Amino acid sequence: MIKTDILIIGAGPTGLFTVFEAGLLKLKCHIIDALPQPGGQCSEIYPKKPIYDIPGFPEILAGDLTKNLLEQGKQFEPGFTLGERAETIEKLEDQTFIVTTNKGTQHHAPVVAIAGGLGSFEPRKPLIENIAYYEEKGVEYFIKDPEVYRNKKVVISGGGDSALDWSIFLADMASEVTLIHRRNEFRGALDSVEKVSKLKALGKINLITPAEVTALYGNKKLEGITITKEDEKILLDTDYFIPLFGLSPKLGPIANWGLEIEKNAIKVDHTLNYQTNIPGIFAIGDVNIYPEKLKLILCGFHEATLMCQAAYRIINPGKRYVLKYTTVSGVDGFDGTRKEAPKVVIQSIK
Amino acid sequence: MIKTDILIIGAGPTGLFTVFEAGLLKLKCHIIDALPQPGGQCSEIYPKKPIYDIPGFPEILAGDLTKNLLEQGKQFEPGFTLGERAETIEKLEDQTFIVTTNKGTQHHAPVVAIAGGLGSFEPRKPLIENIAYYEEKGVEYFIKDPEVYRNKKVVISGGGDSALDWSIFLADMASEVTLIHRRNEFRGALDSVEKVSKLKALGKINLITPAEVTALYGNKKLEGITITKEDEKILLDTDYFIPLFGLSPKLGPIANWGLEIEKNAIKVDHTLNYQTNIPGIFAIGDVNIYPEKLKLILCGFHEATLMCQAAYRIINPGKRYVLKYTTVSGVDGFDGTRKEAPKVVIQSIK
Ligand SMILES: Cc1cc2nc3c(=O)[nH]c(=O)nc-3n(C[C@H](O)[C@H](O)[C@H](O)COP(=O)(O)OP(=O)(O)OC[C@H]3O[C@@H](n4cnc5c(N)ncnc54)[C@H](O)[C@@H]3O)c2cc1C
Ligand SMILES: Cc1cc2nc3c(=O)[nH]c(=O)nc-3n(C[C@H](O)[C@H](O)[C@H](O)COP(=O)(O)OP(=O)(O)OC[C@H]3O[C@@H](n4cnc5c(N)ncnc54)[C@H](O)[C@@H]3O)c2cc1C
Repeated sequence: MIKTDILIIGAGPTGLFTVFEAGLLKLKCHIIDALPQPGGQCSEIYPKKPIYDIPGFPEILAGDLTKNLLEQGKQFEPGFTLGERAETIEKLEDQTFIVTTNKGTQHHAPVVAIAGGLGSFEPRKPLIENIAYYEEKGVEYFIKDPEVYRNKKVVISGGGDSALDWSIFLADMASEVTLIHRRNEFRGALDSVEKVSKLKALGKINLITPAEVTALYGNKKLEGITITKEDEKILLDTDYFIPLFGLSPKLGPIANWGLEIEKNAIKVDHTLNYQTNIPGIFAIGDVNIYPEKLKLILCGFHEATLMCQAAYRIINPGKRYVLKYTTVSGVDGFDGTRKEAPKVVIQSIK
Repeated sequence: MIKTDILIIGAGPTGLFTVFEAGLLKLKCHIIDALPQPGGQCSEIYPKKPIYDIPGFPEILAGDLTKNLLEQGKQFEPGFTLGERAETIEKLEDQTFIVTTNKGTQHHAPVVAIAGGLGSFEPRKPLIENIAYYEEKGVEYFIKDPEVYRNKKVVISGGGDSALDWSIFLADMASEVTLIHRRNEFRGALDSVEKVSKLKALGKINLITPAEVTALYGNKKLEGITITKEDEKILLDTDYFIPLFGLSPKLGPIANWGLEIEKNAIKVDHTLNYQTNIPGIFAIGDVNIYPEKLKLILCGFHEATLMCQAAYRIINPGKRYVLKYTTVSGVDGFDGTRKEAPKVVIQSIK
């Protein structure tokens, strides 16, 4: 059982910044996310695109924002349960919560902050008859640890940035990379399209278009696939088949947690620091709704900060908290580090 | 008469970010500030100190945050009335406002956003009998344009960073710089204290401590001062006397605008995007108060963003606004510039 002060569901920008604000109040956080990496929409949908409305950044790539937020929170040593979906919640008699993932990992905390964005990112799966049977037996929808593919035969399918970028990444690592797309045209960054062209010319990526994977075979684990290219059927031996057709967010299991839902979002009281109808459960960032709500990253930052104040009072009943400026009081990490402004000197001038 | 869409009172981080958010909605802004430079508390009180809780910046100097915010908003060409205090407000029959400063400058706008922080920064003045007479006739409390002091005799008084830094800055420019402080010890950045030491040794700064300026004389304009150093009285000819004893913020005239005030702040309705009790006047950032308010920079950013939505509806009655992501739609400056994400290519790979 993983124990923490604030259990955060969702490692998007809102969840990540919560770690920092909670840390200032000496509260520990643990984050669950269905994706294998932190960053939410910023890392899953548009990591290489610039955002122009993060205050203080005339321009920042979504992927860099994610990196910065991880760096900003790291001295507060957040825990992560990645690649798992928060599935059920149980409120105990002492008003604390147990949240269990689809893989059975259990988390225990007095405060739950749902920063689930548009929902848990779930892969779009190709319609191939027995695909479910081969999942985690050669069929993967995410690349969690690229090392797994070293010296293996890999088939990637898809026509966007993920398919292009992972084909490039694995070209030097896997023993064979085949990229299959149902159109001749790919849709991605110019840079990525050009690199795939080059790797194809070098024989490092085997490109088959317009084509689709239409059957899977193998004994206990995936051993090969059938590719349909116009009227032709091609059999290809492979260790892995990775369809990268994008992810779509689904509010999913959280919709059944007894929370008030409106327009596919969780209703919160913004005079109570974004508390839901269940005391102890908060909803912040894109996932919540209240009058005049804007689904913007900078709003999630504000909501996370106010939420931490309410969490503090639940976790430290009766204790008074006085707001301190980071500039004045510095930042004391749980890892023993301390950040502080250079001291002022008081000195006479000879 | 200066005309604009949103008249902002206060050029602190909240006011500066408002320019950007308003610009995204095609609304023009003009900012009034009592200080000669933008940045509010960040530039006046702690420009060289790091802030650790701006989301996405593990560390940023308050002065750099100000610079970045100016850069982020510059394509929306904000107007500035600096070094003047917003003094009176008048609501016209057509529900628009005229705001007049202490120097008589008039501004006309349908929406007023008070981002006045802890109030208008007013200089602490030394207690010298006839000092008011010499104000703007040789006595200055701010340095607006350092060029004014070229080849002039300048006396600076004070023991903090401003007194040290301006003495350093003017040492090469003025014909004579005298720094007077009532203690032997200065209180400032190590770096500044050391530089003043060096300039003193080089004869570029004339240092008199512990001492005070106790009288001013001159015919129509300042010509000289009396310095009291322990029992000694020293007469010194000078063109300028600049006491830099710090600024203290005062809510000041705004307190008499008929707004509901609580704890020296302006009450707002945060379900109405931080509107005050007077429709069309909003209060955002440190200057406002609502249940669970936190006086933090990141909260001002959120409040400014929501406020602009309400301003849009006042200025464009009946028109519907659909939120657009900057990443997706880019940023079109009023100066004709356009920022946008690199285009995705759709291309077949040969
Ligand atoms: C193309 C595009 C451009 C954008 N441009 C901008 C812009 O310019 N400016 C701006 O401010 N915003 C922009 N946005 C919106 C911005 O990305 C979101 O506001 C932001 O990501 C919301 O952050 P969040 O942390 O609340 O949620 P998300 O980023 O959505 O993260 C939520 C996370 O929670 C996880 N999750 C949800 N439910 C569960 C569960 N049950 N179990 C486990 N994990 C779960 C999800 O997998 C996800 O990773 C853009 C969005 C897109 C798609
Ligand atoms: C030493 C110190 C350290 C801090 N550290 C942090 C930190 O680490 N993190 C954090 O988030 N915050 C910190 N703060 C607080 C932060 O600086 C404020 O929250 C922020 O400056 C508020 O921004 P604002 O734009 O609302 O107001 P301000 O920055 O106060 O700006 C308001 C401006 O309005 C002007 N004004 C007011 N009334 C009038 C008028 N009638 N006419 C003309 N002009 C007027 C003032 O002159 C001023 O320039 C710190 C503050 C201090 C003093």
